[in-house]
This record gives sequence, structure tokens and C-alpha cells, in this order.
Amino acid sequence: MHPSGSSSSLGPGGLDLTQAFFKPIQRAALPSPTKRHTKISVIGAGNVGMAIAQTILTQDLADEIVLIDAKPDKLRGEMLDLQHAAAFLPRTKIHASVDYELTVGSDLCIVTAGARQNPGESRLDLLQRNVALFKNIIPPLARFSPETILLIVSNPVDVLTYVSWKLSGFPSNRVIGSGTNLDSSRFRFLIADHLDVNAQDVQAYIVGEHGDSSVALWSSISVGGVPVLSFLENQQIAYEKVTLEKIHKEVIDSAYEVISLKGYTSWAIGYSVANLARSILRDQRKIHPVSVIANGFYGIEGGEVFLSLPAQLGRGGVLGVTNVHLTDEEAKRFRDSANTILDVQRQLGI
Amino acid sequence: MHPSGSSSSLGPGGLDLTQAFFKPIQRAALPSPTKRHTKISVIGAGNVGMAIAQTILTQDLADEIVLIDAKPDKLRGEMLDLQHAAAFLPRTKIHASVDYELTVGSDLCIVTAGARQNPGESRLDLLQRNVALFKNIIPPLARFSPETILLIVSNPVDVLTYVSWKLSGFPSNRVIGSGTNLDSSRFRFLIADHLDVNAQDVQAYIVGEHGDSSVALWSSISVGGVPVLSFLENQQIAYEKVTLEKIHKEVIDSAYEVISLKGYTSWAIGYSVANLARSILRDQRKIHPVSVIANGFYGIEGGEVFLSLPAQLGRGGVLGVTNVHLTDEEAKRFRDSANTILDVQRQLGI
Amino acid sequence: MHPSGSSSSLGPGGLDLTQAFFKPIQRAALPSPTKRHTKISVIGAGNVGMAIAQTILTQDLADEIVLIDAKPDKLRGEMLDLQHAAAFLPRTKIHASVDYELTVGSDLCIVTAGARQNPGESRLDLLQRNVALFKNIIPPLARFSPETILLIVSNPVDVLTYVSWKLSGFPSNRVIGSGTNLDSSRFRFLIADHLDVNAQDVQAYIVGEHGDSSVALWSSISVGGVPVLSFLENQQIAYEKVTLEKIHKEVIDSAYEVISLKGYTSWAIGYSVANLARSILRDQRKIHPVSVIANGFYGIEGGEVFLSLPAQLGRGGVLGVTNVHLTDEEAKRFRDSANTILDVQRQLGI
Amino acid sequence: MHPSGSSSSLGPGGLDLTQAFFKPIQRAALPSPTKRHTKISVIGAGNVGMAIAQTILTQDLADEIVLIDAKPDKLRGEMLDLQHAAAFLPRTKIHASVDYELTVGSDLCIVTAGARQNPGESRLDLLQRNVALFKNIIPPLARFSPETILLIVSNPVDVLTYVSWKLSGFPSNRVIGSGTNLDSSRFRFLIADHLDVNAQDVQAYIVGEHGDSSVALWSSISVGGVPVLSFLENQQIAYEKVTLEKIHKEVIDSAYEVISLKGYTSWAIGYSVANLARSILRDQRKIHPVSVIANGFYGIEGGEVFLSLPAQLGRGGVLGVTNVHLTDEEAKRFRDSANTILDVQRQLGI
Repeated sequence: MHPSGSSSSLGPGGLDLTQAFFKPIQRAALPSPTKRHTKISVIGAGNVGMAIAQTILTQDLADEIVLIDAKPDKLRGEMLDLQHAAAFLPRTKIHASVDYELTVGSDLCIVTAGARQNPGESRLDLLQRNVALFKNIIPPLARFSPETILLIVSNPVDVLTYVSWKLSGFPSNRVIGSGTNLDSSRFRFLIADHLDVNAQDVQAYIVGEHGDSSVALWSSISVGGVPVLSFLENQQIAYEKVTLEKIHKEVIDSAYEVISLKGYTSWAIGYSVANLARSILRDQRKIHPVSVIANGFYGIEGGEVFLSLPAQLGRGGVLGVTNVHLTDEEAKRFRDSANTILDVQRQLGI
Repeated sequence: MHPSGSSSSLGPGGLDLTQAFFKPIQRAALPSPTKRHTKISVIGAGNVGMAIAQTILTQDLADEIVLIDAKPDKLRGEMLDLQHAAAFLPRTKIHASVDYELTVGSDLCIVTAGARQNPGESRLDLLQRNVALFKNIIPPLARFSPETILLIVSNPVDVLTYVSWKLSGFPSNRVIGSGTNLDSSRFRFLIADHLDVNAQDVQAYIVGEHGDSSVALWSSISVGGVPVLSFLENQQIAYEKVTLEKIHKEVIDSAYEVISLKGYTSWAIGYSVANLARSILRDQRKIHPVSVIANGFYGIEGGEVFLSLPAQLGRGGVLGVTNVHLTDEEAKRFRDSANTILDVQRQLGI
Repeated sequence: MHPSGSSSSLGPGGLDLTQAFFKPIQRAALPSPTKRHTKISVIGAGNVGMAIAQTILTQDLADEIVLIDAKPDKLRGEMLDLQHAAAFLPRTKIHASVDYELTVGSDLCIVTAGARQNPGESRLDLLQRNVALFKNIIPPLARFSPETILLIVSNPVDVLTYVSWKLSGFPSNRVIGSGTNLDSSRFRFLIADHLDVNAQDVQAYIVGEHGDSSVALWSSISVGGVPVLSFLENQQIAYEKVTLEKIHKEVIDSAYEVISLKGYTSWAIGYSVANLARSILRDQRKIHPVSVIANGFYGIEGGEVFLSLPAQLGRGGVLGVTNVHLTDEEAKRFRDSANTILDVQRQLGI
Repeated sequence: MHPSGSSSSLGPGGLDLTQAFFKPIQRAALPSPTKRHTKISVIGAGNVGMAIAQTILTQDLADEIVLIDAKPDKLRGEMLDLQHAAAFLPRTKIHASVDYELTVGSDLCIVTAGARQNPGESRLDLLQRNVALFKNIIPPLARFSPETILLIVSNPVDVLTYVSWKLSGFPSNRVIGSGTNLDSSRFRFLIADHLDVNAQDVQAYIVGEHGDSSVALWSSISVGGVPVLSFLENQQIAYEKVTLEKIHKEVIDSAYEVISLKGYTSWAIGYSVANLARSILRDQRKIHPVSVIANGFYGIEGGEVFLSLPAQLGRGGVLGVTNVHLTDEEAKRFRDSANTILDVQRQLGI
């Protein structure tokens, strides 16, 4: 069964009405197939994939949204639930299928599919299963949309972004992991909440591996354009490293906390990925901490590895990486993350 | 446990930073408590309540959103998940609690809480349990926000809107049921999909009871300003009653279909209720088919009953009901629905 | 002098900074020239052209806006004034030039340029001068953007849309006049103001010639989905033709009134044209009363003429014309307008 | 003549229709006067005032916009031109009058009115005339809206903000000058244009006097969270003070340049002030460089003076000033500006 966009089947009576209702004008060319139409495919219709698709729909970022999942019933249910809101939204085509052919010509493919950990399963075994899953996802995406940008959200995001890069054969600027974009948003929220300012006025990056070994760039924190560390020095306020580390720890814990409380995360990752989609598709040239190929940065040499760095994103994907200064300690932790991931990648045999 | 907005607890070290970072200006009055701030409370943090809250957040309709639910863990998880997106959104205060005191001064209270049917439970028993639940919800809402507007989404929506009206003691213009607003959107989508037009260009109402006995107002259908029935007559196209009834049946079935496919409905009701919230809070004076006290319309006399009619909504709630023409048959079906509901209300002893 | 987008010229020192600030990632392909980027050119940087450009910018409808005018100083001033707001808006490229080459690859070209009436000049002489002007505008637009859609705003809009169609050699679905789209908006505002409803809930068309001989389609008026004429009949309210004609007259007079009061019209035409641009570029398939080739409609035969009819607009331009019913009197007035315009076109020798 | 919102006058026939079209529901309370409705008054319907009003309308920041000007014809023309767009916008009440009574209960009053320099007139004479003008503007605004926030845009903005503070008798947190908010935006645009990044990723403040003596805070510049000065040091790139001063000079010149090219500035100041209005009315707690009472900052003592500093804005007006570090030279230039302004204020005898 292939659920598709048109859910109505009113038969020949309907056809007459359509033909009668509109008349063609004279000397018109046949309308050419819609060009320059923005198409996003979301792979995986679980909580994360649907929060992303729905936020993209609300924010009017695409002319067409395609949902792909292995479960046709769930998929058709989600598609209909979005379509039923048509009267409240700008017109967007919403399609769904188990078949990747529907993704043809996508501008952006967002991959959220992933296996869940079985009881007693090791992390490496789980990852091996996810790699097997991606072998069924990435090659058809690349085949049906050879010009697309791949945005990987499934975890562990850094390894799976590397895997997607390898499987796609794409240049590295067109394979991006959502990485620490959400971690950085949580970091900004906690600092903003603490100072009672707007989180959009807080600049702060978490880089490196998405997860427990992520690196908070203390020197990057500024509030309303005031760099916080040098402010503290100028004001001769004792630098309380403990306090700052506590905020970082709260960021790392917050994903676990949300999962333990509600069972999964959805809304924040939905907004985070929609935000990346806007920068990419509207060519905003904005800077986001996302997972990119990190070789050549901060002494990472040898094997290829994806880690989050502040990258400028636009219609061409990754346009460059901000040359932000890391302290020796930050750079070392960054390299340590790279080595851990490279070990995993070697064990996976990829 | 009362989860509240501030999830950070950085201790006294943090306090110093805040005080140092901003300086007060001279001769300023103490900032008065924020006036004219728009506050929405959502009761019930299940799939429907959260889809509503998240859509309201994305569409920037409120300055403060309060979530109330009986399950503190789920509630805190949902609150944190929304808060973590702060860097991607205009600043909105998001609070959550099991305690209704947090809803104080709400402009709009949206009730989505409801009991689920137990195996073997009769509809009347289920309804009785929901009425018991509402006795714990509506009086505290009315007490903490005596000027609020109540928007009821829980099912069966028409009876529960009547119950809420009774329990609140509010004037009837401030108690509204989401009613057939979503049914009408599904109707508009199906007609638009059929004619390949924008659903926003389709006008079409379903009125009466939200559910199987709803009434499609064929004479209200217009597409791009062209009334469809008189168009068909003018074009001498045979009026295919069967075709039109088929679309209406598809609307009635579509809620069941989405529930059977994905287990619940969420996105479309989220957009639908956010749309009502905008009309009410931004005083848009737009016309929506929602559940209002229907006595005096189309021959409904005797007991009090809420049913959906095209009502003009604004900051004062229901401003009036559009005096739309019903055929004799439509009016009869409307009255039949009223009688069915009145029977139920009598059995409930309310 | 060709003012262009980059107004900064910081010399070689600047170059170093840019190169140092971003580092390329490894194995990236050179970013391909931005594809699927939406480009709008506005011809004429007067009050109308600038209100259109600024509204399009605020509403974030384009990735690139190009302004073309014959006056380089005015042009550069307007471009800089828009660019200076960059920090408050999503990133949009804003360019300006006296040279049409800058419009290359536009998705939509909006023409607002036009000569002003000299004292003592006849309307025909003025029109002749405007035709001469269009001979310098339309051919280069068509040459640099052979796939573009032309949206003509200059007056008399119906004749100049015909002239643009002829000069461009485009199929008729890609040449559109703004026509009575704004007249219809004024009509909807007056009805909404009268009934104290939201103008977006009012459907009402003015069709035919943009100007004094426009035709108000009384049968098309509906409010919140209720057709007003049949409502009045059902309610046995005496049909006051005089009242309705008074509203139509007020619409016709309102353009003159605004011009006599403030010297020109700008804001409403800006919103009106931005609204058309959205429907076209985002493929909304919405229905708008705009000037299209009208042969074959309501008995118009013989010479080719553009007049406003409710047309469905999308990425392909005009997708069809709504088959709305005109009374015999309405159809006659429509044909009379066509004949008047054909006379003018014959006198112009085009 | 007092032009007001309702421009239609359809007589008694119209009245019947309205009453027939809507029916009241039973047991409804009379709708109370709309509470918590956001009202903005704009004083001065020239190019600046109208660009502000139109941008606020497009961005849907207010439920009611009131225009006040001394010229009733111009005023009514502008009001009608905005009203005619009602069908394209969310419903906003738009009123206009020569009479300040219409501003009653405004949440925000934006003052753009100002005298123009006569040939041969000294700056002090011009200022004296503007002070006389403000004596007719500020007291009625304060009287009709004693809780409002005053946002002064007229030039010289710092002196006139001080004058408005004195004339209103308001606490200083409720009197704000647009100050260097636009200068800072131009600064951010030029840096962004130079580095080919999004201007929203650039943080950079110009503070002090709005005009030739403004102070660029080099240490505040960061791009994508990277402080530029310390980046240059870390990269051992020679600090080219000349280059940076050149950008600042370009900012100062750009207002003059736009005025010399197009005759006035409008769009950028419109977006800039709409941006401030959003932060204030939606309680965004964002930080903007605006003119606030500056006594006690950077050694300013003695007389009272308004100058731009990065201030946190919210529903209460100015919530505090960011404690940004100024170099000794920057602080000295800041104090020099203060002294110049104090001299002028003394000469004015205020």
C-alpha cells in the first residue's frame, strides 16, 4: 500500500465539476512542471520526525513535505492528520510513502530513523544495526535526489553522519549532522533563564561530540554582545569555574531528564532542525554548531571524523567553519572525542 | 512536586553575575507587574494538549503558556522540551504545574483533559466519569481566572461544553466548544483536494453535533467566492447528491481513520484550536463553526444545549451567530441532534 | 553608475579578515551557484514600486530583490535604505541598477514604471508615451528572464498588460495585470467595516476594467460563507440596489480620494501586489481577480483584450479562470469595457 | 474635521443588514470593552512615521494603530491607504485624527513629528522650534495615556528624548529615544556585507550620541559568537585600526548619503522602530542600543542627559543597562558627547 497525497476518490462525478469550475485562458502555454519548488523529505515518522515535519509545516519552510517510514499505517495516519489542517495553513503538498521514489528531487533529506536498543544489547551492536538500516536509507535518497543535502538527526549522530557521507558518496559540504545545535540551544536557554534575558540575545556554543563528551566553549559566551568571561575579568568578579561547569552538566543531563520524564524528546529537536532547514533552504549563511567533517581542525588528523563546530550554512550546505579559538584544554577534549569516535568507526569496519 | 518555569538553580554565585551584568538607570520607577500580557492555560498535557500548546508557541500567540496535568513527571518533561527551544523562538514564558493556582489571570483556558474508555464501559459511564473529572477542573479555572474564556476540546465536546458552562457559572459567550471547527477544516480540505484549489479559498461548514450526526451545509459551500450549488444549477450540471454525501461521510470517517492508523489525532486539532485562540485573543471577529448555546436557533426550545453554529469570535468570546439559512431537512437534523444530547444530559442528571 | 549590492569597499585589509575568519572543510565540492533561489525584480522605484518591494521584503517572499529605475541616485538611496535594515530581517539580497542585466533569471518581474500626465496632455497621448516606455522595459525583461512571469501594475493596467504580452511574446498565462485585485480588497474592506466583521471573512469580486467601468459581482458577495444576496432573499429583506451601488461607487472613488488627499497611493497596492506575488511564487493556487486575456469569456470575441476575472494563480502563472456566473447586465457591462479597450488599442496601433 | 476609522456611511439600509446578519446567543453577558488590547499611537504621518506604522501593521504587532498629524488631508489619505489593505492582513483597527484624544490608553506612543530646518536657520533655532512643537505633543500624550511608554524618534533624538522626559513627568524607564539602534544596524550590515555573513549573526554596538559623535564599541563586535578583536589577536592578524574606523565613518555617513540620494530616510528607521516596539510590547527583554538617561554611567555626573547605551527593553520600558566595558578613550568620548548635549540643553533653558 502506498498512501499518497490525494486521499479523496470521488469518482467520475467529481471530474466533471473540476472541469466545469475552471476554464483555461486562450493562448496559454501548458503550465510547465513547477520549478524552484522547495521539497523536504523526512525519513522516519516517529516522535522526532513528526515534530520536525510539523514545525517545518507551521513555519512554512517548504512547498512539499514527504514522509517516509516503514510502517504504512502510522505513516498514512500522520499524513492525514497534517493534511486535515490545510484550511489553517498556507498550501503545502504533503505526501507519504514506504517507497523512496516519492523523495525524488528533494532539496533536503532529514533522516530521523533509527533502531531502538534491545534489552541487553551493547551500544556497538545497536550501532551495527543502525548502520545496516542506513544502508537501506541513504543510497536510495542519494539516487533519487543526487543534488540534495543530507541532514542526519538519528543517534549517535556523529558516527551516523560519517556513515551517511560514506554511503552517499556526496561531497562533505552536503552531509550535515544536527550535532550540538540543540545542546547549544539548551545551553543558551539555561544562561538566559539564569540572567533573565532573551535566549536569542545569548551566544554560546557547545561543540565536539553530541553527548556526554561535548565541549562547552566558555570563551564564546556573550550576552547582548558582551563577552561574559572578559566582562567578569573587567569587573574583577571571581571566575567560578564550578558554576559554569554546573550549567554545562545541566545541558548534558537535560536530554536524559526529558527522556526519563516523558519517554522521548520531540519539540526542541523539532524546532532545532527546522531552524537548520531554514538556514540551508533560504540560503541564510547563518552560523550553527553542527556536525561536519572535522579533519584539519584543532589538530585532528588521521582518520575521517564528523564532530560539531560552528559552521556557516546556506543553500550549498556547509559553506565554511568559523575559526573560533579553543583553549589548549578545549582542543585536547575535542581531539579526545575524535579518537573515541574513530575507535568506534574502526570497530564497525567502516 | 510543582515544576515551574525556572529550571536552573545555580546558587548564590549566579546571583552576583545577574546583578553585575545589568545596572538600573536613574529615576526609573520600579517596573510595574507586566500588564496586558496574554496568558493561555492548557489543561491536559496529552497528545492533543501538547499539539495545541506547541502550535500556539510556534505561532507566537501568547506571552505565557501554562500547562496543567495530573502527572507531574510527564508535565515537567513536556515543559522542559518546549523550554529548550527558547533560542529558536520569540520569548514566551512556559510554566507547568499540577496546581491550578498557576493559571491565575489566564485570558484563555483550553481544556483537553478527558478519561479514556475502559474495556466494556458504556458511553454513558465514560461520560459520567468525565463529568466527575470536569468538576475538579472547571471550578478552579473559573475561580483563578474569573474573566477568562473557556475553550473546551475534550469529547463528547458538546455535552462537556454545556457541563463547563454550568460548572463555571460564566455567561454563555465565554464558554465555547471546539465543536465542528476541525470537521469543517477536513471538509474544506477534501473539497480543495478534489478541485485542486487552496483550502483557504474553500468556504464550507459542518454544523450541529461534533460526530456522526453532524450536518453538512451544502448551500454554504463556495470556492473562490463562487457558491458551488448555484454554480452547478447555472451550468445545468446534474446535482449529484450522492457525491456530496460521500464527501461528508469521508469527513465523519476521517477522525476514526486517523485514530485507527496512528492511535490518536493531534496535529490537525492543534492547528484548529490555535486558529480559534488567535481569533479570540487578537479580537479578529472571524467566523468559525464552534459549539455555542443553541437555544433559539432553528427551532431549538426547551432544555439548554450546545451545538456548533458559525459564530463570530473575538476578545469577548462569542459575539454573535451568523444567521445562515438551513433547509428544512438540515434544520430537522439539527433539532434531532439537540434532542439526542438533551436526552444524554438528562440521564447524567445535569 | 551601476549601484550594486555590495556597498562596502574596505580594501585588501578586509579580504584578509574574511579569509581568516572562515576555514573551508575538507572534501567539500565547490558550492554550486545557488539553485532554486527566488528572485523578484521590481521595475520603477517610485512610491508604488517601493511599497511593493518593502512589503515583499517584510513578508520574506524572496531570496533576492532587484530594483530597476532610470534614476541612479534615487535607486541607490532606496537600495541602501532597505539594506540598512538587514539586522532586523531574514537575509535577502537587495540589488539595484539602471541596467536590466541585473534582472537575469527573475522568477517574477513586477512593472510599476509609468509616465505622468503632462498638463494639457490627452489620455491617448499619455498612453502612447507609456507604450513607448514599455518598449524599453518589456523586451529586456523577457530577454534576461525568458521563463519569468510578468506582473503589470502601471496604469491603465489592462491596456499595458496587453502591450506587455505583445512585446514579450510570452504565452498568455505568464502575463498578468494587477487589475481589480486592489479594487476587490477595497470592496471587501467597506463591506467588512459596514458589518463589523473581519475583511478576510468577506468574499466579493470586482471584475472587468480597472477603473470607472469596473463591474461589481453582487452575486459573489458572501460573509463568513453566507451568500449575502440569497440571505437577504431568505430573510425577506428588501434588496436595496441603491445601497449596494453606493458601496461600489465608494470603491471607484477611493483611489481618487487617496490621491487627492496624500498625492498618490502606495500602501494598499503594495500589500495587494505582495499578496499576488506570494500566490504565484509559493504556488498557492489561490483565486484572485486579476487582468488576464479575456477572449472567450462572457461573449468577448474578435480582438484580444485583457480584463480582470477571478483567476487561479500559481507557479505557472494563470492556471485557469473561475467559471463565475454573470447576470446578463453584468456580462453586457463586461463586454462594453472590452470594446472600449479594443478601441483604444486600435488607436494605439498595437 | 476628524477622520476616524469608519469610512463607510451607508445609511439606515445598512443598519438593517448588520442586525439581520448576526443573532445574539442566549444568556450571554454584554461583551465587555476589549481588554488587553495592544494600542500604538504614531505622532507624525510623514515618511518616517508612515514607514513605522506600515511596518508595525505588516508585522502584526498591534491590535490598534492611531495616526496623529496636524494635516488632516494627508492623515486621512494615509489612513485610507492602510485600511484598503484589510483583506490582506490580520484585522487591526486603524484610526487617524488631528486630535490627541484618539490616543487614549495607548501602550506605546512613537513620536516622529519635527520641524524642518529653514534656509539660514541655526541648529539651535531649529531645536528651539522643535521644543515648542513638543510642548504641544508630549503633555496631551501623557495626559491621555498616563501609563504609556514614550518612544522618541524625532531628531536631535537625544535632546528631544530628554525634553520629552521633562514634559511628561514620567519615570525615566518609560521614556526612550530610538538613538543609535539604527546606527548599530547599519554597522552590523556593513560588517556582515564585508564578511558575507548574515547580519543577524553580527553583534556590534554604536553607543553615545546619535550622530557624528557616536562611539563604536570595537570590543563588542562578535560574528557568530566569535569576538572579532580577540580573534584577530589570537590569529596574530595586525589590528588595522584604520579599516575599522573606516566602517564607523561609513555608518555615520550613510544617513547623510541616503538623504542626499532619495531626499529622506524611511524604510530602515521603520524596521528599526518596529523592532523596538516588538521588544517592548511583547516583553521580550532583549538588549538594544537606545537613548536612556545616562547619569551614573562611565563618569557622567552633573546635569541630566540621555545617550544611547545597550538597554534591556520589556513591557516596563527600560529594565536596565548592560554593564558593557568601555576603554578609557571610549568612555572619554562618551562623556564629551554628554557635555556637548548638556551645553545645548542649557542654551535651550530646559
